[in-house]
Amino acid sequence: VGLGSVPLQDAELAVRELDHAVKNLGLRGVEICTNVNGRNLTDPALGLEKFFARCEELGILLFLHPMGYTQADRLTNHYFNNVIGNPLDTTVAVSHLIFDGAMARHPKLKVLVAHGGGFLAHYWARMDHAWRVRPDCRTVIRRPPSKYLEKFYFDTITHDPQLLKNLIERFGADHVVLGTDYPYDMGEEDPLGLLAQVKRLPRAARDMIAGDNAARLLKLK
Amino acid sequence: VGLGSVPLQDAELAVRELDHAVKNLGLRGVEICTNVNGRNLTDPALGLEKFFARCEELGILLFLHPMGYTQADRLTNHYFNNVIGNPLDTTVAVSHLIFDGAMARHPKLKVLVAHGGGFLAHYWARMDHAWRVRPDCRTVIRRPPSKYLEKFYFDTITHDPQLLKNLIERFGADHVVLGTDYPYDMGEEDPLGLLAQVKRLPRAARDMIAGDNAARLLKLK
Repeated sequence: VGLGSVPLQDAELAVRELDHAVKNLGLRGVEICTNVNGRNLTDPALGLEKFFARCEELGILLFLHPMGYTQADRLTNHYFNNVIGNPLDTTVAVSHLIFDGAMARHPKLKVLVAHGGGFLAHYWARMDHAWRVRPDCRTVIRRPPSKYLEKFYFDTITHDPQLLKNLIERFGADHVVLGTDYPYDMGEEDPLGLLAQVKRLPRAARDMIAGDNAARLLKLK
Repeated sequence: VGLGSVPLQDAELAVRELDHAVKNLGLRGVEICTNVNGRNLTDPALGLEKFFARCEELGILLFLHPMGYTQADRLTNHYFNNVIGNPLDTTVAVSHLIFDGAMARHPKLKVLVAHGGGFLAHYWARMDHAWRVRPDCRTVIRRPPSKYLEKFYFDTITHDPQLLKNLIERFGADHVVLGTDYPYDMGEEDPLGLLAQVKRLPRAARDMIAGDNAARLLKLK
């Protein structure tokens, strides 16, 4: 099954295209970038609240995939705007969805995040500390930000079995799905092999990650 | 004991001030920011190679501490230029020190990184994958980048005992030192309490982190 694409620069059109993709074409979700022409996903000027509401209402999967960071003057060498820029843009997007309340207002929204959730899924506690000690961090959400991070789903693209294990143990085997990033060189050519290298992972957890979670999220069974 | 400060915008002056700080004032190291007026630490225009060489020669500790990201247009709300910007600027700095070969050329350089090493120490495998698959990532260094990351030292400011445990298990108890970030609100008020919450940490490892490593790095004994 496939995911659709929507023109997020126009929220009304994005909602119409989402409806078309799901209702007419039978697609099970949409993939969006982690910013819209350099604007954060919760930027009021974009008005994407209605788009997130429609995604939640339709029960489809929203897949977030970055394309480098939008201010990359210091990331020009060594492919850093992919190596660092991708997990960064993801972190900025997910952080805004959390702190600006999109996840709180749409508790049934299913959001899958590429590359094992980027930096944030592996270094989440700093935002909780900020929420606890800084009044400017708790203007919108009432619970610690990591409680909303736990709502997201993450793919297995971590490039290391121990990092993947950390991810699974932190967010639960029911929140991790197999990823390939095919056909890019930064992808994982042997995702089942990577999963098999995760130590002491129960068979039930492995089955969920290798397919059952995706089947549920994409309504394949 | 204290650390000195040096004017990195002028490499010659930085070396002179480093010598003064160490030889005349008895300081045991210097603290520098993770960029120099928005330039990466390995930017040829800065010419800091001689500074790193002098740090190595003197055997002093170089402490990297960020002050937000230098291109922060998308990090203006929710204190994000600290919450995200600090571990990001650290990541950009450490990545350049690794990929541009500063760590390879100065194998005895002792670099301590604030905030548990920022994002990179907790999400290090993507750079190794890039080094393996991308020719533009292996123009300088001959070994996987994480081999150089393992040379760094990290403080305990992770805000969560499991993240701290992950850090210790990945880089070794001999590479982690107690951090406070005192007196800032993003600091850790009870660093020994955080360390005590790390499960199944041997007493010897705890002692190293709580003081022995710092004593060694700062030549206190």
